[in-house]
Amino acid sequence: MLSIKGPVKINVDLGEGYGNFKCGPDEDLIPLIDYANVACGFHAGDPLIMHETVLSCKAHGIAIGAHPGLPDIQGFGRREIKMSAEELTAAIRYQVGALKGFLDAEGLPLNHVKPHGILYGMMYRNRETCRAVYAGVPKGTTVFGLAGTIHEEVAQEMGLPFVAEIYGDVKYNADKTLVIDRKKKPWLPEETKMHIESLVENSAVTAVTGEEIELPLGGHPVSLCCHSDSPGCLEIVKTARAIVDKFNATHFPSA
Amino acid sequence: MLSIKGPVKINVDLGEGYGNFKCGPDEDLIPLIDYANVACGFHAGDPLIMHETVLSCKAHGIAIGAHPGLPDIQGFGRREIKMSAEELTAAIRYQVGALKGFLDAEGLPLNHVKPHGILYGMMYRNRETCRAVYAGVPKGTTVFGLAGTIHEEVAQEMGLPFVAEIYGDVKYNADKTLVIDRKKKPWLPEETKMHIESLVENSAVTAVTGEEIELPLGGHPVSLCCHSDSPGCLEIVKTARAIVDKFNATHFPSA
Amino acid sequence: MLSIKGPVKINVDLGEGYGNFKCGPDEDLIPLIDYANVACGFHAGDPLIMHETVLSCKAHGIAIGAHPGLPDIQGFGRREIKMSAEELTAAIRYQVGALKGFLDAEGLPLNHVKPHGILYGMMYRNRETCRAVYAGVPKGTTVFGLAGTIHEEVAQEMGLPFVAEIYGDVKYNADKTLVIDRKKKPWLPEETKMHIESLVENSAVTAVTGEEIELPLGGHPVSLCCHSDSPGCLEIVKTARAIVDKFNATHFPSA
Amino acid sequence: MLSIKGPVKINVDLGEGYGNFKCGPDEDLIPLIDYANVACGFHAGDPLIMHETVLSCKAHGIAIGAHPGLPDIQGFGRREIKMSAEELTAAIRYQVGALKGFLDAEGLPLNHVKPHGILYGMMYRNRETCRAVYAGVPKGTTVFGLAGTIHEEVAQEMGLPFVAEIYGDVKYNADKTLVIDRKKKPWLPEETKMHIESLVENSAVTAVTGEEIELPLGGHPVSLCCHSDSPGCLEIVKTARAIVDKFNATHFPSA
Repeated sequence: MLSIKGPVKINVDLGEGYGNFKCGPDEDLIPLIDYANVACGFHAGDPLIMHETVLSCKAHGIAIGAHPGLPDIQGFGRREIKMSAEELTAAIRYQVGALKGFLDAEGLPLNHVKPHGILYGMMYRNRETCRAVYAGVPKGTTVFGLAGTIHEEVAQEMGLPFVAEIYGDVKYNADKTLVIDRKKKPWLPEETKMHIESLVENSAVTAVTGEEIELPLGGHPVSLCCHSDSPGCLEIVKTARAIVDKFNATHFPSA
Repeated sequence: MLSIKGPVKINVDLGEGYGNFKCGPDEDLIPLIDYANVACGFHAGDPLIMHETVLSCKAHGIAIGAHPGLPDIQGFGRREIKMSAEELTAAIRYQVGALKGFLDAEGLPLNHVKPHGILYGMMYRNRETCRAVYAGVPKGTTVFGLAGTIHEEVAQEMGLPFVAEIYGDVKYNADKTLVIDRKKKPWLPEETKMHIESLVENSAVTAVTGEEIELPLGGHPVSLCCHSDSPGCLEIVKTARAIVDKFNATHFPSA
Repeated sequence: MLSIKGPVKINVDLGEGYGNFKCGPDEDLIPLIDYANVACGFHAGDPLIMHETVLSCKAHGIAIGAHPGLPDIQGFGRREIKMSAEELTAAIRYQVGALKGFLDAEGLPLNHVKPHGILYGMMYRNRETCRAVYAGVPKGTTVFGLAGTIHEEVAQEMGLPFVAEIYGDVKYNADKTLVIDRKKKPWLPEETKMHIESLVENSAVTAVTGEEIELPLGGHPVSLCCHSDSPGCLEIVKTARAIVDKFNATHFPSA
Repeated sequence: MLSIKGPVKINVDLGEGYGNFKCGPDEDLIPLIDYANVACGFHAGDPLIMHETVLSCKAHGIAIGAHPGLPDIQGFGRREIKMSAEELTAAIRYQVGALKGFLDAEGLPLNHVKPHGILYGMMYRNRETCRAVYAGVPKGTTVFGLAGTIHEEVAQEMGLPFVAEIYGDVKYNADKTLVIDRKKKPWLPEETKMHIESLVENSAVTAVTGEEIELPLGGHPVSLCCHSDSPGCLEIVKTARAIVDKFNATHFPSA
């Protein structure tokens, strides 16, 4: 029996450049994906990049979510910063509001909120951190997170709709959490393919320590995440698109 | 005949601290004013300060506007930065959106937008700058500016409601523009009183070069601005409140 | 027998404003102290403030040290950030070098390095953090820290001269470490006086949990630290000056 | 008769990434050049990047200079900011000092100072700006600039040794100043070759408006600048290296 109950969607973090600094090949990725997580200026992104990213997503009909992070451009939101709960809530509200400024101007809805980088990890390791972040999410907005962790529990506690994420370009620890590196290392194409197929077909994956682990999905809608700053990201996303399309066509042909 | 056609309201820039750094005595000022212009994190303010400022204003029933500035905490938005029109529009949309994040969470409307510091001055000196800024203001939102300048002309061109500002704690040049200092110098109480009375009673003021100038108000609603970072600002605002209350009671007793 | 082996000197963190934001009454404090720890732009301070602070200290013949912090103006260097050892070393080298730029221009020596805020605490709790920070200190430069902790051990291991600090306006935990608050609470004058007298006369102090603790000083030169951002700091420093002067005159009359 | 009186050296701006953001292919460029202008953290660069850049240059025996810019990572130092003379001097002193921190730790001298981006342009257009910047340069340190402009005049006035720059990957205006774009456009290889050959062989170049202009060099040592963020920069620098080597071998065989 399938543990994925509906078509899988692909989400990618976008707009993660800063000023003249480029991050990923956003223009090439946008036509390949379903959901964009748009950086909001704290870990990456700036107002002009946000504006241009929203316009590109709009042109391709991609649903847009906010991708708020810790206030640390230099560390790309991948250095832990100990902020108070009040600071975290306010930081999320600020960033999501800023993105909504661009969405409102284009008549687009906010589709979801997905926290970035180390903040995402801090949230599944600490319930108070997770609550503080979700307290900054507009009521009723879908959050993306790891099912079977504090992410899912707090979303349910706070009444936020939940999408379970699986990671196409990040390795898993045996405890089903993610292995986060400040700078990403390249994968072999075959390695990527096997990793994504295993995730999508079996909701399972080989942990960095060798164990085969099954990922809980909790019956939630599922989205496969790929990163625009992974080395070879365009190939990864193309691979993911093909695997996901085949999976969806096989199991959810009418979707 | 009065050139002011309705009751004068007092607006003050608030929330202009940053992290541990305090700016003005916001808590003391809020009960004395009508409109708060809340800093949005670019020239001053941070998410937590914005949150707290919005809560304080809500508690006192003060109407809240956005006070976006140039991206320059170190210069307090008082150093000219040459940004492209696209950058300016995006910077305003970002900041106003960020503030709306806090207003939305409290169920409060955005009352107006008033650009900060040198940006305000750049806008009445350059039509393209003014258009770029106003392009970032949500459609139909009131803007505060100097009547008789590009501010007013562009607001009308772009269909934005306009409130004419008079400045209770800033000197005027003979050309009716403002004398902006990076750091403010203290005024004598009597000087403040005469300046504000002249503004409110006669829509006129003595320029720094000695000329008596009449300020055009264009038949718009009028708001008197005082700054929370002026030396002695609490006394200035109290003085302003008394003068304005007397003026309003005399001329608009039913308002 | 005295555990303090030489005259006590007073050190104060200075130059901790940012742009238009003021921190403490530096001009009033400088004539009262022996050592200035000058903020280097990461947690507070900016180039102009550093320049002006160096000039003021020079005018009063105060010895100047660097006061490097974590890169976080918004958090005033009081929010823990997990940086790699390489990042920390580079951050210290950068900040100390920047201050030396101003000292070199005035023909002044660098007297010492004293890390700021949460970084200071991270260093006595983690040996690798302490080593990373001290690796950024120019060879042979004196460091200020807590005797009896990793601070002292690593300074000795790395051959850096050490000054033992005692804190005139910070409470101690029973384990002889400091109670660091993001924002400081005011003390009663009498409380300050007793705290400082106990420190200077007896090298002992009452911990926040009530225990009387003796502070190890390791035979190092001793410096009493007060903060320019403590509420009532000018009174605290005046009190400290009087106590220290009396102590020095009594025990080290020829110094 | 040659207007270039000695061997031409190649200088490149390096270390212009920020955190995870890369700028140019520094590792490939360093073996090809004579002088590195190392970004100092204001327009680009951060402490860790500076450290690594200094180590790479040291390994290849490249002379290192400071490349200070306006405080604007987002604008890459290419947006004009109106700073006071005191602020500019302090900003330069800070950045040069910070770089010296890394050089001192490696036992390396500071070879020169070359201001970055729009600041470089502001300096040849405004004498006070140029004086303010040079006032932040350590006494006796060589500055790189445009001969025949305020750069050269102020360097002479202030007793700073001067190297005349010619630009291998930037177009010239008919008035012999540079055409600065916020983002660089790619050149054809043949275009680059002709541009550099003309500069090196004839001290002349075709301006964007078509005029043939002769560049004054004032008898100073000459350095050809290429940028690590120009599209195709590695090919440009290889081309420049070949042209310069041939020129130097022909005209200054014993150098």
